[in-house]
Amino acid sequence: MTELSIDMPLMGTRAKAAASLLSLSDAETRNKALVEAVHLIEARTDDILDANAIDLKKATEKAPSSAMLDRLALNQTRLNAIAHSLRQIAAMPEVVGEIITTLKPANGLTIERVRVPIGVIGIIYESRPNVTADAGALCLKAGNAVILRGGSESYHSSVALHGCLVEGLRAKGLPTHAIQYVTTTDRAAVGQMLEGLNGTIDLIIPRGGKSLVARVEEEARVPVLSHLDGICHTYIDEGADLEMARDITLNAKMRRTGVCGATETLLIHRSVLQTHLPPIVKALREAGCTLRGDRDICAQLPEIAEAVEDDWSTEYLDAVLSIACVDHLDDALAHIAMHSSHHTECIITEDLNAAEKFLNAVDSAIVMHNASTQFADGGEVGLGAEIGIATGRLHARGPVGAEGLTTYKYRVRGNGQSRP
Amino acid sequence: MTELSIDMPLMGTRAKAAASLLSLSDAETRNKALVEAVHLIEARTDDILDANAIDLKKATEKAPSSAMLDRLALNQTRLNAIAHSLRQIAAMPEVVGEIITTLKPANGLTIERVRVPIGVIGIIYESRPNVTADAGALCLKAGNAVILRGGSESYHSSVALHGCLVEGLRAKGLPTHAIQYVTTTDRAAVGQMLEGLNGTIDLIIPRGGKSLVARVEEEARVPVLSHLDGICHTYIDEGADLEMARDITLNAKMRRTGVCGATETLLIHRSVLQTHLPPIVKALREAGCTLRGDRDICAQLPEIAEAVEDDWSTEYLDAVLSIACVDHLDDALAHIAMHSSHHTECIITEDLNAAEKFLNAVDSAIVMHNASTQFADGGEVGLGAEIGIATGRLHARGPVGAEGLTTYKYRVRGNGQSRP
Repeated sequence: MTELSIDMPLMGTRAKAAASLLSLSDAETRNKALVEAVHLIEARTDDILDANAIDLKKATEKAPSSAMLDRLALNQTRLNAIAHSLRQIAAMPEVVGEIITTLKPANGLTIERVRVPIGVIGIIYESRPNVTADAGALCLKAGNAVILRGGSESYHSSVALHGCLVEGLRAKGLPTHAIQYVTTTDRAAVGQMLEGLNGTIDLIIPRGGKSLVARVEEEARVPVLSHLDGICHTYIDEGADLEMARDITLNAKMRRTGVCGATETLLIHRSVLQTHLPPIVKALREAGCTLRGDRDICAQLPEIAEAVEDDWSTEYLDAVLSIACVDHLDDALAHIAMHSSHHTECIITEDLNAAEKFLNAVDSAIVMHNASTQFADGGEVGLGAEIGIATGRLHARGPVGAEGLTTYKYRVRGNGQSRP
Repeated sequence: MTELSIDMPLMGTRAKAAASLLSLSDAETRNKALVEAVHLIEARTDDILDANAIDLKKATEKAPSSAMLDRLALNQTRLNAIAHSLRQIAAMPEVVGEIITTLKPANGLTIERVRVPIGVIGIIYESRPNVTADAGALCLKAGNAVILRGGSESYHSSVALHGCLVEGLRAKGLPTHAIQYVTTTDRAAVGQMLEGLNGTIDLIIPRGGKSLVARVEEEARVPVLSHLDGICHTYIDEGADLEMARDITLNAKMRRTGVCGATETLLIHRSVLQTHLPPIVKALREAGCTLRGDRDICAQLPEIAEAVEDDWSTEYLDAVLSIACVDHLDDALAHIAMHSSHHTECIITEDLNAAEKFLNAVDSAIVMHNASTQFADGGEVGLGAEIGIATGRLHARGPVGAEGLTTYKYRVRGNGQSRP
């Protein structure tokens, strides 16, 4: 198929038809299709790794970043992880058909709010083959049809994985257009998806860096569930246990610096500056972290470079941490209100009143007490797999699993009621 | 204040600050502020009716439609209804702070998904003074700050009602900027709201006719919760009781023809065409309804005019009904899938299998069995007051009450966990 011959609107129409059939399929069949896809991934391991080798060879010629090549690369361990993830998704409790609320108004009607699939979801992502499998599976789990458009560098790998998903659908009698992959690398295809393919796409989810998300938010004419910055804060309260504060801060910053739940700014109460700051700074430095402090921090530890205003609103995604001193819990709340991206914030304290105040007052998708901000992840909060972390406030917020890929309808049963 | 002197961005900033305070206010205080507003509306009845008289006088000079004047007019009965509505909203159960789910993942964290306000809501509506009170009250109930922008013809009435809400807030120590009214009639103010007032507005809700909603959907740079068409269907199955079919159809079409839940197309199974259609048609005609049928309908009752293709996708909002004959429940489902606006559809039948199939297969916000589509209303489905009926699929769907004006956050409690 040449690039120009792809009929994107036809993909939309087929997805819509598949979504209609899927909405009536039972959970067991969808789960079995996922397990069948796992069997195929396992059986086709060599083919998939060969396809990935082609992608890696082509990508290497373009001299990309090592991070990009790392995201693109598959091996036996990573394929095992993909298979494990699909099995987990298949084993997760069913969300479609769940009765969320039952209402019994005075008019005698029986009303249920019941969970149903959203319909057709478009997912636009970078060159990460595992997203092809994960996102396709999670959409199917929630009864949605999906149109996947991965980065061009992962073309052969994604097509190979996509083939396994489609064969899984076919084996269980489900519509094969329920999971479609856009096989053109023409960026115009993305533009067409963002316009909604003649009203067939109900939701777009971008997964990738800021420039991709920004393009999607700018151009999309359909609803978008997206993930912007993760400028996460850890606040060490005056009631914090020293050892816990040190261990959590080290983990929150350094476990993985490139994830959105990594802490970017540390706030510390003045009353524990002399006791808690030095061991924390020592641990961070030994782990290779660069530190930038406000005037009070630098006065205490002159070896720390002074932060500039931009530091307080920067998502480093790197081994860099800005540190500010506050005089009161309220000052920490004010700093967070001003600079946070409303993703994840944590208070470390033994003072339960301070903890409750923080948990209530901070307006972020995830607010934590005495735990690392790196727990900001669908699997870790108990949702099973996640399609991403939403930083908007509407529909779904924070880690989004299968439930976030559903909507609801009102099912009303009467016995002849007319409205007065 | 002259029109040009309104500082819309300042309104946004003030709303944001008020929202932050409101999110920490307790439900009882917000409810008491609403009851205080009711007292003021009752005490100021004469002033409010005087203000309304000014609006009516000015509006009449512009020779508007009688429907527009009707929406604008207040009297003692309507003020009583407004007061009753506010009391009901105050008495409704609290939604903010509700723990939606508790998760206990293996990492030992305790995780609650807790309901929180959305933040700042902008409501843009036509010249209906009651919306000023209702929408302002419902936003406050759910802990949101709101910026209200009503139609210019209702200026004096809305300002008078808005004053009562603000005095209610002040009396109970709540931020008076929690409910702001845009006192300019300059349409540029609407444009500024649609751009989000420097990121301070989290959600826009348009309430009004199609041209208003279309403008909002086209121009808004922030999420929109809106209501488009209500092309609702009633399907008379072969298993329908004749009397029930007649009574429900008459109510679904003629109780009020201008509401979104009014049935616009009647589908009838061929096997009951001869028995059920004539009495239904008779009842509708006696009530003053104009009928348009497909070929089968017109063959049976030649006095019915033939429908054109557009009839099947028209929201008449008038005493007009299109009628089509179908050979099978599946044909009814196919007609609905093609022409419905996914608002409200009903099946009338004594056959429970047919009813279940219909309730599952129809992809509309409200699907009904043996009841009038005119029950499509937040109060009737048991939500208390409603801010409107959402025809989109994301965030909230169908009638939207206080709960639809909230989002959630994850509250995570640990005891020192770092992520492995």
